[in-house]
This record gives sequence, structure tokens and C-alpha cells, in this order.
Amino acid sequence: MMKEFFKVISIDEAIGYHANFPPLQTETVSLANSTGRILAGDIQSDIDLPDFARSIMDGFAVKGSSTFGASEGNPAYLNIKGSVAMGESTELTVGPTEAVRISTGGMLPAGTDSVVMIEHTEAIDDDTIEVYRSVAPGQNMIEVGEDIKKAETALRGGRRIRPQEAGMLAALGIQEVPVFKKPTIGIVSTGDEIVSVSQRPGPGQIRDINTYTLMGLVRDLDATGVSYGIVRDDYHDLQSVCTRAMSQCDMILVSGGSSVGARDFTIDVITAMPDSEILFHGVSISPGKPTILARVQDKAFWGLPGHVVSAMVVFSRIVKPFIHRISGLSDETEKKIRLRARLSRNLASAQGRVDFVRVRLIHEKDGLRAEPILGKSGLINTMVKADGLVAIGMNTEGLEKGTEIEVIPF
Amino acid sequence: MMKEFFKVISIDEAIGYHANFPPLQTETVSLANSTGRILAGDIQSDIDLPDFARSIMDGFAVKGSSTFGASEGNPAYLNIKGSVAMGESTELTVGPTEAVRISTGGMLPAGTDSVVMIEHTEAIDDDTIEVYRSVAPGQNMIEVGEDIKKAETALRGGRRIRPQEAGMLAALGIQEVPVFKKPTIGIVSTGDEIVSVSQRPGPGQIRDINTYTLMGLVRDLDATGVSYGIVRDDYHDLQSVCTRAMSQCDMILVSGGSSVGARDFTIDVITAMPDSEILFHGVSISPGKPTILARVQDKAFWGLPGHVVSAMVVFSRIVKPFIHRISGLSDETEKKIRLRARLSRNLASAQGRVDFVRVRLIHEKDGLRAEPILGKSGLINTMVKADGLVAIGMNTEGLEKGTEIEVIPF
Repeated sequence: MMKEFFKVISIDEAIGYHANFPPLQTETVSLANSTGRILAGDIQSDIDLPDFARSIMDGFAVKGSSTFGASEGNPAYLNIKGSVAMGESTELTVGPTEAVRISTGGMLPAGTDSVVMIEHTEAIDDDTIEVYRSVAPGQNMIEVGEDIKKAETALRGGRRIRPQEAGMLAALGIQEVPVFKKPTIGIVSTGDEIVSVSQRPGPGQIRDINTYTLMGLVRDLDATGVSYGIVRDDYHDLQSVCTRAMSQCDMILVSGGSSVGARDFTIDVITAMPDSEILFHGVSISPGKPTILARVQDKAFWGLPGHVVSAMVVFSRIVKPFIHRISGLSDETEKKIRLRARLSRNLASAQGRVDFVRVRLIHEKDGLRAEPILGKSGLINTMVKADGLVAIGMNTEGLEKGTEIEVIPF
Repeated sequence: MMKEFFKVISIDEAIGYHANFPPLQTETVSLANSTGRILAGDIQSDIDLPDFARSIMDGFAVKGSSTFGASEGNPAYLNIKGSVAMGESTELTVGPTEAVRISTGGMLPAGTDSVVMIEHTEAIDDDTIEVYRSVAPGQNMIEVGEDIKKAETALRGGRRIRPQEAGMLAALGIQEVPVFKKPTIGIVSTGDEIVSVSQRPGPGQIRDINTYTLMGLVRDLDATGVSYGIVRDDYHDLQSVCTRAMSQCDMILVSGGSSVGARDFTIDVITAMPDSEILFHGVSISPGKPTILARVQDKAFWGLPGHVVSAMVVFSRIVKPFIHRISGLSDETEKKIRLRARLSRNLASAQGRVDFVRVRLIHEKDGLRAEPILGKSGLINTMVKADGLVAIGMNTEGLEKGTEIEVIPF
């Protein structure tokens, strides 16, 4: 009975190896192209934002105390001293019984500390208004530095630049943004039975699926996928393609080789590479057990299972934190999106491994229902039907219908 | 007391107008560039997938009945008739007492209906194996058409092409994928106080933030943003830029004009456009009330509030379904990602409108805690700190600390 040596580890141990790989170098990109990228360092503000007191209403800039006690029955009377032109500084100085016409976004003149909304005033004549409500100092305006103060840390490095972070960078005038380089991920499909998408498969052949699913998964992480095509189960071909891919990429994903013989080729190719080390070979998850991770110099070399579902599950649950790591992402929030749902049926599970079950999500009045999609891990259709995965822990024999579970959305 | 006519409607009514705008034309893109795009029509399979019975284990292809009753103590003895070469058809025909060596992915020969895992066998000599476990017909193999049957609908139009949909397209040999065109969204920032990011703002001036937040939000929907820069509060300038933008784009977003005077320009510009109609002016939400939607021919023209938070909230909660609509997206699942969390403090809210409160999410042992980020809607920093929004309904006066709420993640 032929059997291969498997150094099988838990999924947490597997993910723990991500710290072995350093984040990539940094570069600068234009602000307009910065969203989705990972900020490479903290950004300090070199200004008070805003650097003038700004109205957030249309109305009259006043000293709040001038309006104290004002009401419908007992309005305050104020003299209109002028108006503030938008986008310009004002030289006006406003006294206790005075007011200045101001629009949203306008600069409060000296002597004012608040804005009365136009709806709470009435013009008596060209020079005088009645004010029907009092305003507190600071009301209906943004104070100097209220958004960000000068020298304050406006953005933390290691976060993905979302639209709002781009907005903050714009506010601070940062046109060139320091970011981590995008990882380049090499993708290699292996297997004598695999033919290219452009071919009509002959008997016993099947088209290459993993290249496209993995390219898509890589792109979803804002990394760049580079396809190295299909390699037959041949040591020299595999070695040649992998050597090239490792020299051009920051990480490689070799999928296929689910048969023992093919896996041996992958192991042999890795072992022959200078400064290489197999970190693990086999993870106690299902699907996806026959996963290989090696370090080659400071890069990760992955041997992913050939079955389409297994390769996607391993990517999503194990490879992803490694790509986050070399991308420079240190924000924990982004990594933990979970949806709570109720299981639509009983689910059995083997102990001693983590089972990832594909589920479809159904929106119901009282929340989400998760419907397991059963089917072999070679069936791409099961992933098309699914909206996410449910993890059943190592020490769980199964889950009962109606249990509240967490779904990891795709 | 000056007051403008507001045709204020509820958020659901506002979103309801999305059906007034037709989905864009379709085009074809290469499979490699298809992820993220919206599939333009159903995809039928023109093959059985797989079109041969495929092993999913390393072992021996057998007729299942040959192994019935086999156990450690009472193994079945089978003659090895040969082996299956990967990626090739096999001419072998297998009888009741025979077995054929097969690898994962190999084609089952005639006469076999299942695969015995190699771990459950032992070689007696070069021609004979002992089998220690019985296999049922269909076990450890994928049947013809088990993934997708010929003429079956493999993918539904209107869904976003995720990595798995790309995988299915690959399996079916679809190299040119019919998709909806990407919407082109014109973005115009207005306001006399707004200066470009490259400028140092003078007194009373502030840099353009909305162009960058809106460009990022548009890009997140896999649409193309086109910036038309900053337009001063001038009817003719605004008319000229908006006319150009409407002729080049599928939708335009004009932000700013939070002051009544500036909003009037936007209304005037819309009204002067041929075949135009203001659909609503004002939505009962906070922030974001002064939102304008017009139809100009068959395109949407948006007047968004100038405050940075308001513009982002209106985009995320109202504009997004319109972009989904013209993008051809009809999948409901994608639109409804919600995270359950417990509120960290009491939240007051006005009745008669929907309040969107920014929240930061904190991962705790027993789940997520949502911490409201308070602050004026002109402060971009509040969006940087936030992970999502909580909606407080029209008829709710507020929410108590500890209430379980749904967070709409950014």
C-alpha cells in the first residue's frame, strides 16, 4: 500500500505561517488611482481642516450671545452688516447686535461664532432681521480643525484606501500617495487531462477552470494575476515554468496535481529550488486537504488541490491572508465580514478537521437562511450556486437545522 | 422668510424611480477580463460536464458490485487489467473480477461504475489486489453531466461574474462573454469655495473632496468615473459642463450647491435641458435631504448635497441601485449584505425621516459592537473612522444601547 508522508497541520497553524513573508516594497500612485490600494504609512495633516470657521447652513453669521432668549414671541433684532462672498475671506467684523448674510460653506467673519438658519429669521427691511431662535456658540458651523487638526494623524498606514480615505487625502492635498506595491501572483494549472478553454476537450479531457477562478480571486484582492498556462505532469516542464514564474512574481499558485504522482512532481520541483523549504503539506480541512506551502527565498509557493472547489476554498480561507500580508494590509476589520444565518437542515461533519460547507443565502422576513449546497468538490456548479461558506469546527460532529451560524460571504 | 419648494419623498419612493432607467447596451469581453462584469444573458451548456465519468480519487476503477461484502477480514480479490492514462480515453473493458489502476481525474473504463481508494487496497502481486472495503456504484467518481447537463442553464443573466462564474464559463469553453456595458458616470463638483487638490486653499476655500470620494464609490461598483472638475456657481459654466457630461456619460452626479442659490442653478440647468423632468427634490433622510434626481432623456442627472458625508450616504443608499439598474444587475443577493451588531450607546433620531448613522465596528467575543461616530456631515474624518451605516427608520424615535441592529458595511 503506497502512501505518502503528509505533514498535516491545522488551518490556524497554516495561516500562522503568513508572518514568515515580508510585505512588498512601496511606491507612489496618483490620488485618482489610489482607491483599493494599501496605504504604506501614516498620513499626518499639515493643515487644520478646515482652516477657517465654515458655515454649514444658509443664514446669518452672528455672535451666539446676541440671540440668547430669542423666540417667536420675543425675536432678537440684528442689523445686517453685509454678506460673505463664497470662497473668499471676509474683512467684516461683527458686533453684538449685528449679523452677516452667509451661505453654506462660507467663512464666518471675525466676531461671530455661530449661524442662524435663514428659516429662523425674517427680514424687516434691507438692513434688519428678526431672529426667532437662539443659537449656541459653535452651532451650524464647523470650527477650525474640527475635521482634522494640524499635525494629527489623519490616516493610518496598512489600511485599504476606500473612497473616504481618498477623500481625506484630497482634503490634505496629497496628490501622490505612498502605497504598497500590488502583489503579482503567478498562476499555473497542471494536469495531463487539462486542456485550454479554446480547445474542445477530447475523451478523458477537461477544460482548465482553475486558471480563471484563481485569476478572479486574485483580482478581487486588488492583486495582479499572471497566468502561466497549463503544464503537463512532467517534472522538467513544471520546473521550467515554476522557475520562470517565481522569478517574475511575488507568489505562485500551482493548482492540480491531485493525484499522488503529480503531487510528487510539485514537491520535487520545490525541493530543487535554491533556498527552499516545505512549510506544510496537508491541512486538516475539507475540501482542500492536499495543500502544500513552501517558502522559496522570501516568496510563497503554493501547491493547491486540483479540484475546482478545493482550490477556491483553500484560496479563500488560507492563501488570502498571505496575499493580504505581502500587500501590507494590517487592518483587521476588513478580514472579518461574517453574516449570521440559520441553517436550513442538519449538517454532518467529521471531527478532527474543519469542514467548509458551501451555502446559498436566502433572505427571509426574520433574517437569512443558509441552505447547504452539497456536491463533490470537483463540481464548479456548486460554487456558482453558493453565496458563501460555513465553517464547521474541528471538534464539532455536525450542526442541527435551525442553528445560528456565521457565513463567510464570497 | 425665503423658502424653496421641496418635493420631498421617502427613500423607498426615491429608489423606486430606478425602474425608469433602462439597462445599458451589451458587448462582449474576453473571459480573462470578465470578472466583475454583469452577464448579459443566460448561458446554456452545449456539453455534458464532464462528458466522461471521472475519478476523484487515486485507486482502482471497478464495478462496485465486485466489492460488495469486502472487509479487512474478508477482502475481495481483483485482477489488475491495466491502467488508465490521464487525459486519454481508455479502450479497456472491465469485468466483474477485474480492476483498472486510475488516478484522480482519470476516465473510468467501460464496465466500471466506481473507484476504490488506493488506501483501501493492497497489492498481492503485479496482477492482483486485495480490496478491504466495498464501494457503491457512483462512489469516488463524477458521473457524466453531474456538474452541468447538456442544454441546462449554467448561468443566469443579470448576475455579476464572480470567480466561480468565470470558472463555469471556462468549463463551457466560452471565450467571449456577453456582458452589459460598464456605466460611465460623470462627476462634477460645484462651489465657489472649492479649489483643486493641487492648490493650497486660500482663506475661505477648501479642496475638492467629493470628486475623489465619488470616483472611488463609482469604481467600487465596477463602473467608470469621469471627472469634469470643479465648476463655479455660475449658470452658464454649469450648463456647459453638464451638457457635455450628459452627452458623454450614462449618468451624471453634480455635487455641491448646498446653498439655496447654488441649488437653484442646478434646477435651472436641468430644466433647460431638452426632454428633462425633475423626479424629486429632497428625500426624507439625514444626512442627504437636499438631493435632486432628474431624468434627462433616458439618463439620470443627480444633484447631490455638497457635504462630503451627505454625498457619500446618498450615493451608497440611493444612487447605487440606479447604477446597478443600468449595469444590468438583477441579482438581489448582492445588494443586501448586512452585519448584525449591538449598539454601544443610545441613539436619538427624528421621526419622519430615515437617519443614517455612521458606525465603527468592534469585534468582541460575543459578536460585533457598533459604535456610533457622531459629527457633522461636513467632516470626512467621520467617514474614515466608520465601517458602515445604521439606518434608523422613519417611525423610530431612537435606539437603545445594546439593541441588535443591522449594519450596512461600506
